[in-house]
Amino acid sequence: MEAYNFCAGPAMIDPRALARVQADLANQPHLGASLLEISHRTPAYAEIHARVLKNLHTLFNVGDDTTLFLLQGGASGQFAMLPYNFLREGDTANYLVRGYWGEKAAQQASRIARIHMIEDPEEADPSARYLHITTNETIAGTRLPESLPLPDLPLCADMSSDILAVPRNYNRFDCFYAGAQKNLGTAGLAVVAFKKEFLSQARRNLPGAFCYLEHNKANGLYHTPNLFAILLLRHVTDLLLEDGLNTLYTRNARKAETLYKELDRTPFWRALAPIGERSLTNVTWRLPTVALEEEFLEKAEAAGLHALRGHRSAGGIRASLYNALPEAAVDALVAFMRDFERTRG
Amino acid sequence: MEAYNFCAGPAMIDPRALARVQADLANQPHLGASLLEISHRTPAYAEIHARVLKNLHTLFNVGDDTTLFLLQGGASGQFAMLPYNFLREGDTANYLVRGYWGEKAAQQASRIARIHMIEDPEEADPSARYLHITTNETIAGTRLPESLPLPDLPLCADMSSDILAVPRNYNRFDCFYAGAQKNLGTAGLAVVAFKKEFLSQARRNLPGAFCYLEHNKANGLYHTPNLFAILLLRHVTDLLLEDGLNTLYTRNARKAETLYKELDRTPFWRALAPIGERSLTNVTWRLPTVALEEEFLEKAEAAGLHALRGHRSAGGIRASLYNALPEAAVDALVAFMRDFERTRG
Repeated sequence: MEAYNFCAGPAMIDPRALARVQADLANQPHLGASLLEISHRTPAYAEIHARVLKNLHTLFNVGDDTTLFLLQGGASGQFAMLPYNFLREGDTANYLVRGYWGEKAAQQASRIARIHMIEDPEEADPSARYLHITTNETIAGTRLPESLPLPDLPLCADMSSDILAVPRNYNRFDCFYAGAQKNLGTAGLAVVAFKKEFLSQARRNLPGAFCYLEHNKANGLYHTPNLFAILLLRHVTDLLLEDGLNTLYTRNARKAETLYKELDRTPFWRALAPIGERSLTNVTWRLPTVALEEEFLEKAEAAGLHALRGHRSAGGIRASLYNALPEAAVDALVAFMRDFERTRG
Repeated sequence: MEAYNFCAGPAMIDPRALARVQADLANQPHLGASLLEISHRTPAYAEIHARVLKNLHTLFNVGDDTTLFLLQGGASGQFAMLPYNFLREGDTANYLVRGYWGEKAAQQASRIARIHMIEDPEEADPSARYLHITTNETIAGTRLPESLPLPDLPLCADMSSDILAVPRNYNRFDCFYAGAQKNLGTAGLAVVAFKKEFLSQARRNLPGAFCYLEHNKANGLYHTPNLFAILLLRHVTDLLLEDGLNTLYTRNARKAETLYKELDRTPFWRALAPIGERSLTNVTWRLPTVALEEEFLEKAEAAGLHALRGHRSAGGIRASLYNALPEAAVDALVAFMRDFERTRG
């Protein structure tokens, strides 16, 4: 029986990337060590680091006006670093809050400065330093519509759950970041991008590990990087380039469409996200009773459909359809759902 | 030809631990995923996390009055977090500076508060919040003598380069921390320990990722942990327990003794560390000329003795003898040195 992993994160990793990184962990005769056991100051590592950055530049389709960093930690670290680096005494920032993670980002920032939390971009304070948005909410299973008009302020985005998973103009952002453990590999690494113009306005003389300008001065190697996560990201991005983003985006759209179509087929399933805000990467739904949900989860697990339990604050079912999840997984899930609904509906 | 890796970090990893973590990256039938692809909120992960903490508690031989964290990032992150969490307006801290890393820690802290940098513990400000020391300096190749009298202040230590590599009473410290990439596995993870009494005095309401009390409230799982580094640390600590720390400490002492004995044999080598402060984990020396050093490094590399170049600020040769380095590596190095000295000395 084929098994599929719908975990919301740390999520499934492309098995081809996982196989390639296993080879990196083997001894490399010319180095006398595996790639995990070399200094980050060696040419061998510099080549890998540069390649990952080049791959990401190409995939984001951003120009020389954008600087990319591969920082330790994840999005939570950026929730703290962004306001710490950009908000001075008396400054404020707008945080658009439409779900758990947007609120989390705003709460963290509010421990550093006065934060303007808003539900509608029209309420943004025009004198604020930036507007922070969350492109996709993993718990509710909603995405921020691309077409939503945003005020003319520096735009910062947490893209942890849909970075390089949906078509997007990355040039629109002054800052965007994502933890790697959903679409880009494994935990412990944040991909962080800045328009250079915006970055130049950051605070100086913060402790180096927390200071974007210090990371910039050190060409992104201020301290030892997370080697394993970067080795893996190299393979993940190589494969994204080999496969082509359009192919991937088409496949991801098809995966979501297949699942939402099943959710819309019968009122036995109750999709949680409003139709115009349905996430392409996290699909959430409820069943008529909690007892049926428990039965569903148990039988799904037995059928090789793993990690479908919704977040405890939302309940119900959640299927995360990140980049690495194959279409066959969604087909198997939908077949299981039809079967379940036929016998229990 | 056997190859040996003397890298100062990211350093050699115990090949048995590397083999075991490779198995973790394979699909685990009962989970439908590898251990790298599961949520950190699952029982399967909770078991691994708890086991690592238990292993570390046992290895450090600390009691229930000590709390351990496995935090994202490395020692540089702690250089920032420690003063950020413990120094309030007007507070100061003593930083004992005897080398590059001690100075680095002090510099980072001085971006947050007024720091009292001292070379001698007797100069410590008794009203300070804590005294920070660096147990081993990787660049100079020196260690802080255990017998050095220290003032009666909360004691915080960066142990990145000799944690669990030399005998030590860990109960003596109110806080100690280490990046994992030298003696405990791979980069992107800091092991951080606090006496609970000291921890309770930390600041509240800092952004969660930077806040020790927030990590404590979340039982060390405030955010997604660095799964891979923790999987590896589990095997590293399992093996330390299987082998026994006394066996390890004896072997480490023998490795250092063998190498220092060769350095003391002939004035052709000039050991850099004062005799009473010689590091057991990083041995540094110079040759009569830079040209001879270059020849030494080139021939050593060709003989399978890798990553022996000293830090650029110190020059010369550095051999890092961390836990994972076998005694055979030191024997091979000394044999090579004798041969080199005979022909070029």
